Amino acid sequence: MDYAAAAARLLDRIDQLSRITEVPGEITRTYLSPAMREANNLVCGWMNEAGFSGEVDSAGNVRGWLQGPEPDSPVLLTGSHLDTVRDAGRFDGPLGVLLPIVAVEVLRESGWQPPFSILNFGFADEEGVRFQIGCLGSKAVTGRLTDADLALRGRDGRSLRQVMEEFGGAPLRLPELPSRLMGYVEVHIEQGPELERWGHPLAIVTGINAQTRLRVIFRGEAGHAGTVPMLARRDAFAGLAEFACFVEHYARATSGLVATIGEVRVRPGAGNVIPAIAEFSVDVRHALRAQVESACSEFEREARKVCEARRLEWEWAEVDAMPAVEFSESLTRTLCDATLASGYPVMRLRSGAGHDAMVLADVCPTAMLFVRCRGGVSHHPSEYVSTQDMEAALKVYCGFLRRLRP
Amino acid sequence: MDYAAAAARLLDRIDQLSRITEVPGEITRTYLSPAMREANNLVCGWMNEAGFSGEVDSAGNVRGWLQGPEPDSPVLLTGSHLDTVRDAGRFDGPLGVLLPIVAVEVLRESGWQPPFSILNFGFADEEGVRFQIGCLGSKAVTGRLTDADLALRGRDGRSLRQVMEEFGGAPLRLPELPSRLMGYVEVHIEQGPELERWGHPLAIVTGINAQTRLRVIFRGEAGHAGTVPMLARRDAFAGLAEFACFVEHYARATSGLVATIGEVRVRPGAGNVIPAIAEFSVDVRHALRAQVESACSEFEREARKVCEARRLEWEWAEVDAMPAVEFSESLTRTLCDATLASGYPVMRLRSGAGHDAMVLADVCPTAMLFVRCRGGVSHHPSEYVSTQDMEAALKVYCGFLRRLRP
Repeated sequence: MDYAAAAARLLDRIDQLSRITEVPGEITRTYLSPAMREANNLVCGWMNEAGFSGEVDSAGNVRGWLQGPEPDSPVLLTGSHLDTVRDAGRFDGPLGVLLPIVAVEVLRESGWQPPFSILNFGFADEEGVRFQIGCLGSKAVTGRLTDADLALRGRDGRSLRQVMEEFGGAPLRLPELPSRLMGYVEVHIEQGPELERWGHPLAIVTGINAQTRLRVIFRGEAGHAGTVPMLARRDAFAGLAEFACFVEHYARATSGLVATIGEVRVRPGAGNVIPAIAEFSVDVRHALRAQVESACSEFEREARKVCEARRLEWEWAEVDAMPAVEFSESLTRTLCDATLASGYPVMRLRSGAGHDAMVLADVCPTAMLFVRCRGGVSHHPSEYVSTQDMEAALKVYCGFLRRLRP
Repeated sequence: MDYAAAAARLLDRIDQLSRITEVPGEITRTYLSPAMREANNLVCGWMNEAGFSGEVDSAGNVRGWLQGPEPDSPVLLTGSHLDTVRDAGRFDGPLGVLLPIVAVEVLRESGWQPPFSILNFGFADEEGVRFQIGCLGSKAVTGRLTDADLALRGRDGRSLRQVMEEFGGAPLRLPELPSRLMGYVEVHIEQGPELERWGHPLAIVTGINAQTRLRVIFRGEAGHAGTVPMLARRDAFAGLAEFACFVEHYARATSGLVATIGEVRVRPGAGNVIPAIAEFSVDVRHALRAQVESACSEFEREARKVCEARRLEWEWAEVDAMPAVEFSESLTRTLCDATLASGYPVMRLRSGAGHDAMVLADVCPTAMLFVRCRGGVSHHPSEYVSTQDMEAALKVYCGFLRRLRP
């Protein structure tokens, strides 16, 4: 089988997909944007060419169904997501949706017929850019969207429920997952530096770190930048600056913890006006859920301290809390076998990034294969995976499908 | 003369003007916006009713001309600005444009004819919201707009020159100022806490503090919030937080210095992406120009230190530098005489806020009268001046006009 040609085809499709964007000059596809719909159509087309039956569900997810030998053959779930962060790279998400399509093409060219059905997902939202809560697509598929989730509002003021109803009619009327699930396997770029450091193309993921996303608002008082003395100010941004220094210091001092203030809005937002409002996100992750929670408690205590000293008011909301996830030993072993059989070393890694696999792990055994990306860089236009490493991932994924017993 | 009724009329006009806004529910009128044009028309109408001849010049300034006894009578300049910060109060600017109109109405009812001409300005931009540089209106009037100013671009990407040409044709072809200038006098709210603290309605301003506005960009590298270890990050916002703490600490420790980071933009701006870019303003003011400059040097040194330690790149630009201004002894003495004659105590204050008077001081003797505002609050919807204090200002302004000799 010509894996090199298959990897080149995979890269070509990833490139084609990367040209679909809502912001010219970037790769930006947020949940249920026109760009997302166009991307879905393109991916459905490739699925149909490969023998899947591709369609988009009412939550915006692409579903590619490959029928097994029996109407009720057990089903392997696979895939990843098709949405992106703002100004993203090409591989984060699309690699894991498009690789299974190419793998099935390669295997079927050699006469292989799958002894099970395959349902390949292109999830509509994993990054959480639009509603500040991640994995909306896989949560919809697994029935885990709550009323609170549906009430979330994006920057345009519309709620998730409204947006989903406009798109698909009934957000919660999704097709049920098949009853005989063998598990879910997801291919994804590492988005970290370990594979490059060790010189390996692939890693088997053992689990995903716990994560909490916070949304915090500090409220002070606007005032004239020239006349209000420093000590009479209630400057919301100065409070955020002090708080952000604490967060960084704490995370640096805590092994394995990462904490990020990635979204910041300061209002009224004029150079000669003291900031009245600072609204910001805090993203906290660690292998242990308890460590994430204790960090969040420390952060909340510090926020209270800062705000009390500065006579600020504050709002503190946990918008998302993900437990740590441990992957299936059995699926993981099959991935290891396929890796060794393809001549690659087995490296085991823990994921610091959240993935749809974390949501699917609630309903079936789950595993993940990481592919090396240059410099560990992701969520950035310079995100890069070599064609050789995609070829390695294709070989291992094909070997996995061949080895997997219904 | 019925000053109480005149003050009520003044407040009514200030209220009418406050309803003209580009953002419903706020008072927001930025340079050459449709709201600004509507405000100009309203003010021209009141000027014409009062006997001025009101028109809008090619830079968007309202000019109200009241002819003196001779064609070449000496001219008193007066007025203030009609633009606002975002989500502003009612009084900052409009009070100083509308009060001279009402004062002339009151004096003429009593048979007074001015022994000099009066040119009352409603300057089109003092706050600098649109182009990050203040006093555009008075700079245009006094011929102080430079090519560098005209090349400045607003958020919509258009330059000041483009915007002015679209509005008025030739931005630098403004009517020349009259040759026989007696001076410029501006009435303005204090925007600080001193008058309230001392229990006085009015203050005579002795001068305006020096000011520098900086625009700074820190550039790091975007990355995944879950996978890039804390010590491997080049987080532009974390750098800004550290820098902002230094700025606040330095200003608190330096008597009379104020420093404000009022505008902050963090990009890409998603909760799960490490910030690559932090762009922000720094506004620095002190009674002594040398003190402003030494603070800016310290800030630049700290920015370099922070960025070098964090492997960030930075851009540092001084977008505006205003010297400290000392007002005319003669005009100020006439204001003091009028204040005492009206039965109010004379309080002298220095202005921490910049005003158009600072620009006019370059071309003629200048003075200012401050009016108490509640809590010293300005640049905020709750900005408030009592009708009694406006009545006091009207009395003193009328007394000033009566006393002033051509």
